[in-house]
Amino acid sequence: MSATAPTTPDTTQTDVLIIGAGPVGLFAAFQAGVLGLRCEIIDVLDRAGGQCTELYPEKPIYDIPAVPGCLAQDLVDRLLEQCAPFDFPMHFGQRADSVTDTAGPDGHPRLLVTTDAGKRFDVAAVLVCAGAGAFAPQRVALPEAVALENRHLHYAVREVSHFAGKRVIVAGGGDSALDWALALRKVASRVTLLHRREGFRAADHTVSAMRAAVAAGEMDFVVGMLGSLQTGDDGSLVGAIIKSRDGDQTLAADELVALYGLVSEPGPIAHWDLDMHAGRIHIENTTTYETSRRGIFAAGDIAVYPNKQKLILSGFHEAALALRRAYHYAFPDKALVHMHTSNNPGLKAKLTA
Amino acid sequence: MSATAPTTPDTTQTDVLIIGAGPVGLFAAFQAGVLGLRCEIIDVLDRAGGQCTELYPEKPIYDIPAVPGCLAQDLVDRLLEQCAPFDFPMHFGQRADSVTDTAGPDGHPRLLVTTDAGKRFDVAAVLVCAGAGAFAPQRVALPEAVALENRHLHYAVREVSHFAGKRVIVAGGGDSALDWALALRKVASRVTLLHRREGFRAADHTVSAMRAAVAAGEMDFVVGMLGSLQTGDDGSLVGAIIKSRDGDQTLAADELVALYGLVSEPGPIAHWDLDMHAGRIHIENTTTYETSRRGIFAAGDIAVYPNKQKLILSGFHEAALALRRAYHYAFPDKALVHMHTSNNPGLKAKLTA
Repeated sequence: MSATAPTTPDTTQTDVLIIGAGPVGLFAAFQAGVLGLRCEIIDVLDRAGGQCTELYPEKPIYDIPAVPGCLAQDLVDRLLEQCAPFDFPMHFGQRADSVTDTAGPDGHPRLLVTTDAGKRFDVAAVLVCAGAGAFAPQRVALPEAVALENRHLHYAVREVSHFAGKRVIVAGGGDSALDWALALRKVASRVTLLHRREGFRAADHTVSAMRAAVAAGEMDFVVGMLGSLQTGDDGSLVGAIIKSRDGDQTLAADELVALYGLVSEPGPIAHWDLDMHAGRIHIENTTTYETSRRGIFAAGDIAVYPNKQKLILSGFHEAALALRRAYHYAFPDKALVHMHTSNNPGLKAKLTA
Repeated sequence: MSATAPTTPDTTQTDVLIIGAGPVGLFAAFQAGVLGLRCEIIDVLDRAGGQCTELYPEKPIYDIPAVPGCLAQDLVDRLLEQCAPFDFPMHFGQRADSVTDTAGPDGHPRLLVTTDAGKRFDVAAVLVCAGAGAFAPQRVALPEAVALENRHLHYAVREVSHFAGKRVIVAGGGDSALDWALALRKVASRVTLLHRREGFRAADHTVSAMRAAVAAGEMDFVVGMLGSLQTGDDGSLVGAIIKSRDGDQTLAADELVALYGLVSEPGPIAHWDLDMHAGRIHIENTTTYETSRRGIFAAGDIAVYPNKQKLILSGFHEAALALRRAYHYAFPDKALVHMHTSNNPGLKAKLTA
């Protein structure tokens, strides 16, 4: 049993918190299970797969050992299958915000991680497998945008009813911009899709549906870019100046939904007092992949050291060695006997169930 | 182009020599191809696969990332498929014996490796992926055996005609002992199979065939162990004292074929002036996996460092980073630009051909 720390009732106790459910995080969960560690996984996205699923699900990957040429999504599916026998909880749509050093009742060091959704994890170790960082919406690059955020400027549509009867600008040229423009036209008083050019990065049938809705007068489509946002004295949105080749035009609007896609950023981890290098976590010890902060490890693209290669297979190795070290933090008094999976009867039963 | 060293005509020039065609060596060949390095592979066995093929082809392996549960032989087949597009030469039945520091005409350091079969490789780097070491026949543990080796004591049957008309003892209880006893009975004056017990580690039909041959008087089977070997004044084999529960007996013999199976041993690498630790190669720098000798790298089970895990996936990572470093020895004046396999048009064409 791992150490137990004094915690509030809504705190989850486990051995290892894995941050990031991309390929490296998923393999890390499998490896934790093999070693006999309990773990939970959080990811800022709403599903597993990280970059593979979010950015290039249909990209073939050739350099996974013994898997000559599989699509990124297939790789994720195989890894999900591999870690499934351990049934570790995965928490999606959550970003790790802060980490605090604490201690168990036996005095052994522990870490308390809180997420932006208010969850708390009391763990012996944290393994950061955050790839290029936490995915976040690409924001509107206008100074007046910040004050409108979450009030009249939205980077996701949480509740359709919020837009009922409003004049809405949906900005963006991908599937989610078109899908939401089409959906919101049914409740909004008027929807205007705003995109910088005539072409779209969206499925053909979605583009056709949008053009049909515009032709039917159910919504508008404007080619141009946001020049500035106009706000009322009460902080409400009044309209936007749209810049285009034909000059500027003003578009009256109550709400702006900006769906420009995702960017990745180090996020709060940048403020965790870890030794960082150009937005990535610097690793001094390439036999344990522990960061400069005790109990926090990093594996995969987010980890950097001399001669580092951004190969998924390197993340697998880094995670495996990090977890072996983490084992001693979770079970300080227990020796870890290495057993191959096929020689461990209990584990073998689980993996072949 | 890599440096060219003054060499004899029978010397092969390439960028990297990979020692060991087990899973790590095979993936290393793939990785070399991805990086644009030429390589050749040698292995002491007569086929690819190393331990996987030789010791446990039908053992399921669970901890290869994204390959949940495959047999060892399948893993080898997948890796052979993966490196096939590069078509690198593999030299089987050859053991690397010595390595000498040399230099190319441009003054850059090179290494000259010779094998026990007389081949010479002039290379910029050597990557040792020798697993548990070089496989070698388990030898007869009698002091008088050494003088008889390769003359009247054999650990493999090279030429059947050598045994024509001779009295031959075949010692061992596995498939190859039984197969060779059955085969040699057709040319020898008499074959005696010697095994320490009645049971065999061999295919049922082979055991049945042997028992039928004994029943038909075509050969003998003796349960017992070699107690000592008797030699004539001219150094020939005269006979063997066989120890068994029933006491000792003398068996007249001209030739002894001992087929006790394979053991792995560090082999000549132990004398390459590498920093060794308990028969394995110690790695100081776990970002390049270079040994204590410039240009010689080690990956997989043969490489040891703190927190090392004998996982095949670790060998993959170690080989990838070692080769990236080796690239600078092969092309000292060329920067290596990392490209993912799927973003490199030429490579992609090769891998999808």
